[in-house]
Amino acid sequence: MSNLLSKFINNIEAYTAGEQPRDKNYIKLNTNENPFPPSPVIKKILNNYDYDKLKLYPDPNSSMLKAAISKKENTAENNIFIGNGSDEVLAFCFPTFFNRKEKDIAFADITYSFYPVFSDFFGINFRKIRLDDNFTLNCEDYFNLKDIQGIIIANPNAPTGKGIALEIIEKIVKSNLDKVIIIDEAYIDFFKQSAVELTKKYNNLLVVKTFSKSYSLAGIRCGYAIGNETLISGLERSKNCFNSYPIDRLCEAVCTAAISDSAYYDGINNEIISERGILQQQLKEIGLTVIPSSSNFIFAGLENKGKILYEKLKEQGILVRYFDKERLKSFVRISVGSKTENLVLITKLKDIIREINQTGNI
Amino acid sequence: MSNLLSKFINNIEAYTAGEQPRDKNYIKLNTNENPFPPSPVIKKILNNYDYDKLKLYPDPNSSMLKAAISKKENTAENNIFIGNGSDEVLAFCFPTFFNRKEKDIAFADITYSFYPVFSDFFGINFRKIRLDDNFTLNCEDYFNLKDIQGIIIANPNAPTGKGIALEIIEKIVKSNLDKVIIIDEAYIDFFKQSAVELTKKYNNLLVVKTFSKSYSLAGIRCGYAIGNETLISGLERSKNCFNSYPIDRLCEAVCTAAISDSAYYDGINNEIISERGILQQQLKEIGLTVIPSSSNFIFAGLENKGKILYEKLKEQGILVRYFDKERLKSFVRISVGSKTENLVLITKLKDIIREINQTGNI
Repeated sequence: MSNLLSKFINNIEAYTAGEQPRDKNYIKLNTNENPFPPSPVIKKILNNYDYDKLKLYPDPNSSMLKAAISKKENTAENNIFIGNGSDEVLAFCFPTFFNRKEKDIAFADITYSFYPVFSDFFGINFRKIRLDDNFTLNCEDYFNLKDIQGIIIANPNAPTGKGIALEIIEKIVKSNLDKVIIIDEAYIDFFKQSAVELTKKYNNLLVVKTFSKSYSLAGIRCGYAIGNETLISGLERSKNCFNSYPIDRLCEAVCTAAISDSAYYDGINNEIISERGILQQQLKEIGLTVIPSSSNFIFAGLENKGKILYEKLKEQGILVRYFDKERLKSFVRISVGSKTENLVLITKLKDIIREINQTGNI
Repeated sequence: MSNLLSKFINNIEAYTAGEQPRDKNYIKLNTNENPFPPSPVIKKILNNYDYDKLKLYPDPNSSMLKAAISKKENTAENNIFIGNGSDEVLAFCFPTFFNRKEKDIAFADITYSFYPVFSDFFGINFRKIRLDDNFTLNCEDYFNLKDIQGIIIANPNAPTGKGIALEIIEKIVKSNLDKVIIIDEAYIDFFKQSAVELTKKYNNLLVVKTFSKSYSLAGIRCGYAIGNETLISGLERSKNCFNSYPIDRLCEAVCTAAISDSAYYDGINNEIISERGILQQQLKEIGLTVIPSSSNFIFAGLENKGKILYEKLKEQGILVRYFDKERLKSFVRISVGSKTENLVLITKLKDIIREINQTGNI
């Protein structure tokens, strides 16, 4: 508590990102990064980059990257908003679409844990809607929501990995035309049921994507939103109240290049989807409960043993993510790694589970 | 006005950055970029960068860059906060240090026009304190400010270019120990009276700097704040309510490299200071009123002719910045360019002024 800080910042609880250790070379399966490197065209772009240009501000509209996204997503450029990671895009959504201290917005009780933090930061009230015992979103909870000013749904969801069929998303959007529905599609390329096309039909739908996961570019910080131009113009206005140039020149060049190499990315992401299938099977075989995943990570557990699994794996040099919450205490979230990493994971996990079974409840 | 946007965003007025034209090759003297390219070590860094690393999130703490800044500024790492441009750093200051809808914060009536926008975006009340007729800040207006919860001063100021002596800054900080004083030193390397050392003496002082100007890195978007660790921890908390990783891997690598080449930057910035002297003299000789500059730009004008000067220069392929405000209507802000650019500017301006004098009040 300091008198030089605002009351607000003295009291707020910030988001805690997954560990990014710098001391030790872990097998890193805790922040859902892509195990494959980004497209080789990026190396070429960086090697030939005219670094003298860095003296000039970037294009505040990121027009080159918007043109590439526009082509890829089959939308007009004024239907696209670009931010410094999808986190920044999501952050801007709160003051843009929701009124302070008024009706709640709604999201699942188990979902991306940044949503309540964004809400608090921008003074937006929220209500959590309970997923069922299998972590499935009951779509009827979201139809015709009264006394709610907006909805955010991560699809596929994190940390569960569960996907929601596109027809259900459409029904939710259609039955709530008076409010903005944000679909956070950070992991959509591992599920392939994007709602982007629906943004042409529904003015109240905003779809948010990122370069961090399927594009193997977590290190470059870029994400975007697609929606009706009114929604996009609102986001641009928020951005221009905060930072005129959030996308730097190298980021724009790298992401534009990445989009040009869809063949490479289709290849690696299909390989991740195939590895995900193998890994889910193996995790079940060694005795874990596995939530069927539509993402590049798997939510798996042993009764009340999530924390133990996390700690024992860390001792063995493997980082996974544990969420210290009552409903999640049996589980860890494991990113699908490379073939070799997944093999090491299964081998170590086998030993850990044997040990747990021998010593009983550690 | 849209029902799908918040009332707040429907009504707010955003900041307008200087033009960043992409259609034509202007001599660009409108956004105070450095005319020299960034240090050659940056090319080397980019050419040797291990692009595979881009698949991983950046270090959320930007520790490598903090270490470099710490060495350069002679402060501890926990006295440093890094953001996506000094605009983002400044933006985070508002919710961190000031209470919503309470007492005013204070800044000059003529200063960086993003301050009132940040204030509105975060719901902070503000009061503008008038600079005198020569655009000089009257320091007594800032001593022992009552009913004010914070102060922001750009030093040197923009768009006037006027610097405030360090002793005066200290007196202002010292007489307002109960509130945070932010000194925005975007242009300090052209004035060389930084208040960074004072942050060790005064807990209520925060100094904000940028890589955009003296480091020739406007295109990479990086800025930082230096202050007491309580102030810094507050900024970190705001950041972690908004975006865990605002600094991407390439940005961190490039800025760290830049700091290592102080010899290069001392050289180019001294050249800019020397060019500034020549340019001021020439502008006076051709009949303009010139505000003595401590920055890398010059505020110069002809009575009520700021807009005409801006428009005529643009026709001639030279961009400068005009601010459409009553007190500034005689002036344009001209960035100090390269020797050649400055020569072209003076030649064209001479013709324009001759034309204005011949035709009278255009």
